[in-house]
Amino acid sequence: MLTREERESFARAMLMDVNSAVRDVNCSPVVIGTELFDSEDIQITVRDADLNQTLNSLLPETTGELLIIMADLPLADGESLKRVLATKKDMAIVPGRGGGTNVIYLKEPKRFHFDYYGMSFLKHVKIAGDAGLSYDVVDSFRLHTDIDEKEDLVELLIHGTGRSRAYLEDLGFVLSVDKGRVGISRKKDLAKTD
Amino acid sequence: MLTREERESFARAMLMDVNSAVRDVNCSPVVIGTELFDSEDIQITVRDADLNQTLNSLLPETTGELLIIMADLPLADGESLKRVLATKKDMAIVPGRGGGTNVIYLKEPKRFHFDYYGMSFLKHVKIAGDAGLSYDVVDSFRLHTDIDEKEDLVELLIHGTGRSRAYLEDLGFVLSVDKGRVGISRKKDLAKTD
Repeated sequence: MLTREERESFARAMLMDVNSAVRDVNCSPVVIGTELFDSEDIQITVRDADLNQTLNSLLPETTGELLIIMADLPLADGESLKRVLATKKDMAIVPGRGGGTNVIYLKEPKRFHFDYYGMSFLKHVKIAGDAGLSYDVVDSFRLHTDIDEKEDLVELLIHGTGRSRAYLEDLGFVLSVDKGRVGISRKKDLAKTD
Repeated sequence: MLTREERESFARAMLMDVNSAVRDVNCSPVVIGTELFDSEDIQITVRDADLNQTLNSLLPETTGELLIIMADLPLADGESLKRVLATKKDMAIVPGRGGGTNVIYLKEPKRFHFDYYGMSFLKHVKIAGDAGLSYDVVDSFRLHTDIDEKEDLVELLIHGTGRSRAYLEDLGFVLSVDKGRVGISRKKDLAKTD
């Protein structure tokens, strides 16, 4: 649906939306990325290791609380993140659609370790249990909706309020209804069939 | 994935899960159905009209508050419904995945009308606005996740706690990971490839 350049710009727009949400709740974001890029005001860390190795290497050096949030959550907002940070337990976790983990908030990072990929939500819940950490599962569709498939963009056009929604609209994407199902189409594609 | 009989039993199990959740928050459920069926303790209403006509005909005769919830929400629980009922606004609404409306709670039903199908979430929000009703959009993945597609069953096997999850497990369904993506498979199908 998108060219490589469009995908990169869209990914950047989603990252900016997540950055805004995180700043709304007074966190100090650090981006863990695979390469450096120009950013307005965000600190970027690039390490020569996979996601789990990188995140786990941060745990011993982290003092205080830690919030890990994926960058493909353009519906994230201050309200939903406040509910995560309000937990009275040792940890709060938000499952992603399809078994993943979208957000983890740790009050004592040293007691945890990350195991992303596959059924990471169930793995993270087990890791917390094995470590004696209490946890809340935060019930939020805004933080549950990661952008993987075309259908996920429908959610963004309905519920998004930030830059990534605006970017999709700038590209000409609109909601459409086909055989009772809501989908997404691009205006120039519609024009072709005229 | 399911035979016709299995689909009917599964739909019944989901209805029972929604019924339990609704009773947890002290509501008195009435099922609006297309045909009568044996039910343990639920009142069933069958009308010769479509969903919108049927629901709209109930509005003038409803005194007090009204909660409309779809029957294919097996992750619904008391906690998520409590957040709906706790609204301080005239209405609370929970969007379904793909533009639909999964839950509507109305303090003054007479001031509203229903318009399900297609992008009903956006339609219902507009109807509320036009009628001068204030509203909350409740951010819950448990109430957002309706069961339409195979992938939705993954959510049920991960997050479900009631009869419909148990029914799927009785049928032999288990979570599986294929190329990094979490899916669902049936044990007898797995056995075939042995």
